[in-house]
Amino acid sequence: MQPQVRVPEFLESVRPAIDRELDRVLPAGAEPPVRLHEAMRYSVFAGGKRLRPSLCIAAYCVFRPDWEAILPVAAAIELVHTYSLVHDDLPAMDDDDFRRGRPSCHRQFGEATAILAGDALLTLAFECLASGAGVAASRLQEVTLRLARSAGSRGGMIAGQIMDLEAEGHAIQAPQLDAIHRAKTGALIQTSLVSGALLGGAEPAELDAVESFGRAIGLAFQVTDDILDEVAVVETLGKTPGKDLRQGKATYPRLHGIEASLTAVRRLTAEARRSLDDFGGRGSLLAAISDYIGTRAR
Amino acid sequence: MQPQVRVPEFLESVRPAIDRELDRVLPAGAEPPVRLHEAMRYSVFAGGKRLRPSLCIAAYCVFRPDWEAILPVAAAIELVHTYSLVHDDLPAMDDDDFRRGRPSCHRQFGEATAILAGDALLTLAFECLASGAGVAASRLQEVTLRLARSAGSRGGMIAGQIMDLEAEGHAIQAPQLDAIHRAKTGALIQTSLVSGALLGGAEPAELDAVESFGRAIGLAFQVTDDILDEVAVVETLGKTPGKDLRQGKATYPRLHGIEASLTAVRRLTAEARRSLDDFGGRGSLLAAISDYIGTRAR
Repeated sequence: MQPQVRVPEFLESVRPAIDRELDRVLPAGAEPPVRLHEAMRYSVFAGGKRLRPSLCIAAYCVFRPDWEAILPVAAAIELVHTYSLVHDDLPAMDDDDFRRGRPSCHRQFGEATAILAGDALLTLAFECLASGAGVAASRLQEVTLRLARSAGSRGGMIAGQIMDLEAEGHAIQAPQLDAIHRAKTGALIQTSLVSGALLGGAEPAELDAVESFGRAIGLAFQVTDDILDEVAVVETLGKTPGKDLRQGKATYPRLHGIEASLTAVRRLTAEARRSLDDFGGRGSLLAAISDYIGTRAR
Repeated sequence: MQPQVRVPEFLESVRPAIDRELDRVLPAGAEPPVRLHEAMRYSVFAGGKRLRPSLCIAAYCVFRPDWEAILPVAAAIELVHTYSLVHDDLPAMDDDDFRRGRPSCHRQFGEATAILAGDALLTLAFECLASGAGVAASRLQEVTLRLARSAGSRGGMIAGQIMDLEAEGHAIQAPQLDAIHRAKTGALIQTSLVSGALLGGAEPAELDAVESFGRAIGLAFQVTDDILDEVAVVETLGKTPGKDLRQGKATYPRLHGIEASLTAVRRLTAEARRSLDDFGGRGSLLAAISDYIGTRAR
């Protein structure tokens, strides 16, 4: 197995379908209110890798092959992710002028439009879930519940963002940083995977395994991001490197050093792989994804 | 029938249960992140009349008496309404320092917390819907879809807010003002009623009737609000009166004059009552509500 080859190929293979689905569910740029809909599309079609929806699809594929059936859920996950980026970049929040190498939404469209575009993307995500044809209503309900929780204020994305803002400029301890990372980034990554498994019909024990897997790679992903922020140049990263450090944001390398951060990533990806033991060959794509996330940092 | 008496009594009779449900679904103020959860509660428990959830319950009661069963849906509707107030008040939006006679959320807790509190209230609304026990999953799915649309960017609340912002300081025509009012206020009021009817098991023709009723009183409510903004004093209104006019916002009295606005309200509430013809006696509470909304303006 060559994970470095397989995962990019997998991502490339599902990406066009995810993008088509996003294009289908998003209002046309020419549909009024035009400026708002342009801002929503500008933020969604900004060159993201569609990692979270791809994780949802990968986890579904452990159980069933017909992944096109869950594209509305995959799209909803990407919409939630995009809304969070738009709001995080706002002047009152992280005040970021650039995102993926282009002006951030509020720089391009103004602050009011960016706030409303984020609101509309979040709202559309739930519309998208509720209109999800071809999936049993009770499973959609469970996925909606988990997605809302992972995006919410109790250990979800919003909790992570506010803890992150409140920690700025303060010395924090390792457990607190782990809590921020798990809430801000880990929860949605984990739920993307668990949603795919749920929709694929995973048994309770299988769901637990995917949950553990998601918990480990969710944190691994954010630690890797911290490391990249420290070492990458702007061309690679598409955002201002070293910005977290300058803002006094808590990061893994800042708290533990680069070497220990790399070790943590290796430990987490190994833990992720172990969660897949009972899947045997069916877990090979997820295993490769865990290696892929671990090697981004090197 | 004395609608002036009956409707306040009805509102008072359901309000404690709605407030208890909101209290139950909202994170405790002491639960971390504390400041965020305090901001959410501050905005939800600010003395609102719970009109939208009460409309949902009133429409449900046309079909079934056991309205406690739909309290999670009623609470979700109030959470969506509250999120919209928190975000509309932001400096980049309507820049309102007061709401219901108290400092607005961002004045009390800061802008970042207010943005996130709004996000969290919207997210919690969908969590609340998805965890709605005791209601069939397929009906919940339909209600979720309609609520998301009425809050969204295609003719929903977000569309109304951006059209409103874009119209500031510009001369607009009557059809455009109707479109703003219907999107910004009407859509959620209409969906509150339709959701109640759907959950109560309304037949398609009955659903159409409630939809027409909601369309008429949704607009009547906003026109009445415009009139109150023109004539009320700060004590009555709990917000700065005349502010819409000073901001150059389009309002009914500004475009049509007070007399014509009052006539429009009477025409709309009569239209609302006519929609209820086929309900006979079962429609009496909704009819009284329509009169109540019409008399607020006098």
